[in-house]
Amino acid sequence: MAVQTAPTGDTNSAAGATATTGSAPASVDLGPASALSCRECGQRFPLGPIFACAECFGPLEVAYDLPGGDPEELKKRIAEGPDNIWRYAPLLPVPADVATKPSINPGFTKLVKADNLARELGVTGSLHIKDDSGNPTHSFKDRVVAIAVEAARAFGFTTLSCSSTGNLAGAVGAAAARAGFRSCVFIPHDLEQGKVVMAAVYGGELVGIEGNYDDVNRFCSELIGDPLGEGWGFVNVNLRPYYGEGSKTLAYEICEQLGWRLPDQIVVPIASGSQLTKIDKGLQELIKLGLVEDKPYKIFGAQAKGCSPVSTAFKAGHDVVRPQKPDTIAKSLAIGNPADGPYVLDIARRTGGAVEDVDDEQIVAAIKLLARTEGIFAETAGGVTVGVTKKLIEAGVLDPALTTVVLNTGDGLKTLDAVAETTGPTATIRPDLDAFRTAGLAG
Amino acid sequence: MAVQTAPTGDTNSAAGATATTGSAPASVDLGPASALSCRECGQRFPLGPIFACAECFGPLEVAYDLPGGDPEELKKRIAEGPDNIWRYAPLLPVPADVATKPSINPGFTKLVKADNLARELGVTGSLHIKDDSGNPTHSFKDRVVAIAVEAARAFGFTTLSCSSTGNLAGAVGAAAARAGFRSCVFIPHDLEQGKVVMAAVYGGELVGIEGNYDDVNRFCSELIGDPLGEGWGFVNVNLRPYYGEGSKTLAYEICEQLGWRLPDQIVVPIASGSQLTKIDKGLQELIKLGLVEDKPYKIFGAQAKGCSPVSTAFKAGHDVVRPQKPDTIAKSLAIGNPADGPYVLDIARRTGGAVEDVDDEQIVAAIKLLARTEGIFAETAGGVTVGVTKKLIEAGVLDPALTTVVLNTGDGLKTLDAVAETTGPTATIRPDLDAFRTAGLAG
Repeated sequence: MAVQTAPTGDTNSAAGATATTGSAPASVDLGPASALSCRECGQRFPLGPIFACAECFGPLEVAYDLPGGDPEELKKRIAEGPDNIWRYAPLLPVPADVATKPSINPGFTKLVKADNLARELGVTGSLHIKDDSGNPTHSFKDRVVAIAVEAARAFGFTTLSCSSTGNLAGAVGAAAARAGFRSCVFIPHDLEQGKVVMAAVYGGELVGIEGNYDDVNRFCSELIGDPLGEGWGFVNVNLRPYYGEGSKTLAYEICEQLGWRLPDQIVVPIASGSQLTKIDKGLQELIKLGLVEDKPYKIFGAQAKGCSPVSTAFKAGHDVVRPQKPDTIAKSLAIGNPADGPYVLDIARRTGGAVEDVDDEQIVAAIKLLARTEGIFAETAGGVTVGVTKKLIEAGVLDPALTTVVLNTGDGLKTLDAVAETTGPTATIRPDLDAFRTAGLAG
Repeated sequence: MAVQTAPTGDTNSAAGATATTGSAPASVDLGPASALSCRECGQRFPLGPIFACAECFGPLEVAYDLPGGDPEELKKRIAEGPDNIWRYAPLLPVPADVATKPSINPGFTKLVKADNLARELGVTGSLHIKDDSGNPTHSFKDRVVAIAVEAARAFGFTTLSCSSTGNLAGAVGAAAARAGFRSCVFIPHDLEQGKVVMAAVYGGELVGIEGNYDDVNRFCSELIGDPLGEGWGFVNVNLRPYYGEGSKTLAYEICEQLGWRLPDQIVVPIASGSQLTKIDKGLQELIKLGLVEDKPYKIFGAQAKGCSPVSTAFKAGHDVVRPQKPDTIAKSLAIGNPADGPYVLDIARRTGGAVEDVDDEQIVAAIKLLARTEGIFAETAGGVTVGVTKKLIEAGVLDPALTTVVLNTGDGLKTLDAVAETTGPTATIRPDLDAFRTAGLAG
């Protein structure tokens, strides 16, 4: 697809403290973002709605001129910012005045010190859950979409779009509504009614495609390359390099909430693998900026056994990831051919981490374990990370004496089916005290 | 029921900056709470798990020795507190060190400046949504339960309980799990599976009662008066005076988030009416403490037409509230005989507000209006407040030139059924560009 020229409308007034460099068109202000660079060959491109290297077809990611100066000054500036991801605007591809624009303002979710869970798992260090179910539409997708919205604004797009079967549809619908974009989301025509409602309630266009999710994606690729799709920002396609950067904010928040310290170990779910790579990128940036001490940390990837191409490759010692056909209740992680799989393998190996998987039964048990110990009702993806944490501790891979952070990226209300069959009343009784006494529930 | 003696265990170490007065047993430290006082006759009682006046059977509420001194000092102390309701510990019936105890830490939810909605409603002043769907279990109930938990701790209860058909069950289950209490929640045996899952997933006892919600409540009243129920804290019965105080935090947060200013107008949903009365109590406390300027504000109550005993009484000019049999999709507000109805009438009239209602169709339209304009997917109760706001503006009762705050107390994910029938795809097409072109969706 062609690089679309940047508009001169909205963005001229947005010149902030962190100016763009000469490599970006003059009218695009995305704060400290200076260019796109190819993850494979390093070739640089001006900021624009492109996602693949014109030289080698490698994935593009955002390069920055990050702010220099006194780290304590930067910490102070961050602390004085809003209670959402825009507190990190100096480190994100957004204009400096981003917090004044209409956004659903995700982020700064709770980092819960999980002492009850730690006790059950035999953790003697400190265990924390980064609980992204607290985002506006209750998943981490709000973070990445919020960044994509600002890129769409800068590039003059008027319609936000995506293909989705779940969390992303709601995140795009909500973000577009608030930010004043038209939205058009594509879903397989036979989704469950609950998911259709979540995707449609924000009032954007919702198009059911007669086919499965692969058909939806193929159709979207065609649309991006066609004049019909002109002016459309597909958050996870032509805006993907910006979108992905939203996951860096998880790293920033975790470190700030730990008192500007790196965790020793962090357990991240793997779908495409993008989130894990961006968390690593975020941690590296904090070290480079002097916001945290430069010390080792280990990143662990978590998959469902029913869709475990990365953990399979990790265990086999492979550098390439062989695609799988997903069959798991963890639908938000069910990407059989994860684009960032090889990068995940690199990071897990470089940091001394690992990639592990748990089966559906273990996922359900882990959802219930987290709910019972900490009062957090996680999506299946949270069951995957908590289940993998438990497994890695039992295997002696994860060190229970250290500081560990486990991500919960979504909300159990969205995956009720996963636990419905095995979650019900302790007893059903007549409304009288004798029946209650007989049931043996007085405690 | 008898006043239970307070234990000497947990609470002795909790002596903080704001000591209890002589009227409370020495071992109960509930911070600035000094006594319970009867809302009808003013009789005072020591702090304990009681809820009705021994003299006149009137409802009891918490009386305080509030902190004196420089308001700016108190603001600073609050600002330095945690990002949850415990920042207001000096104004709540909790020990000063409450933030160190295990809690799901609700509150400090977003106050969203709703400019898009304001435009649609013709508001020329400023319109804000206080969005309590951001709480840990996604409703305002987390606030009231969190306070009840601390009272239960102080009184030595080991089991937390309630009867519920919805939000409260999840809030109690989650709070108990995290705080280390056993929980036992009573529900009608024939609830929808989704609601049963939300109530059961936190691992406490869940008892289905063969009967309707009235039967469940009758059974719980029996249990509280029986030795079988000893050591049980029913959050909204014998802990009700403390529980209710949690709603004051909505008033505190709204004013702090407005820059320590009172809103001119505030629209609050009415179930039992307790929330509205406690918001008024909270605003009055802020005025008394000098944290906000003493100026008039108006409180508006919002009901569903299918359960509108208070708005009916308001419009008829009555002082008493005649019970109704509820028939509305706004199930979280469906209390036909609201205990605090007369107090709500007083407050609405005293402040120059009103009580209004909207029908189910208007509720659904308002849910969609809020989602479409601000990206907030509200529970039916939020549809009631937004719908009533619209109606009151159109009727010239609510002044569109002023600062107005509208409460959304819950999350649309919990009441998907309300919008499911009327929310769906714009179009369903074959996966090809011709079909897309024909559907006329390119924009």
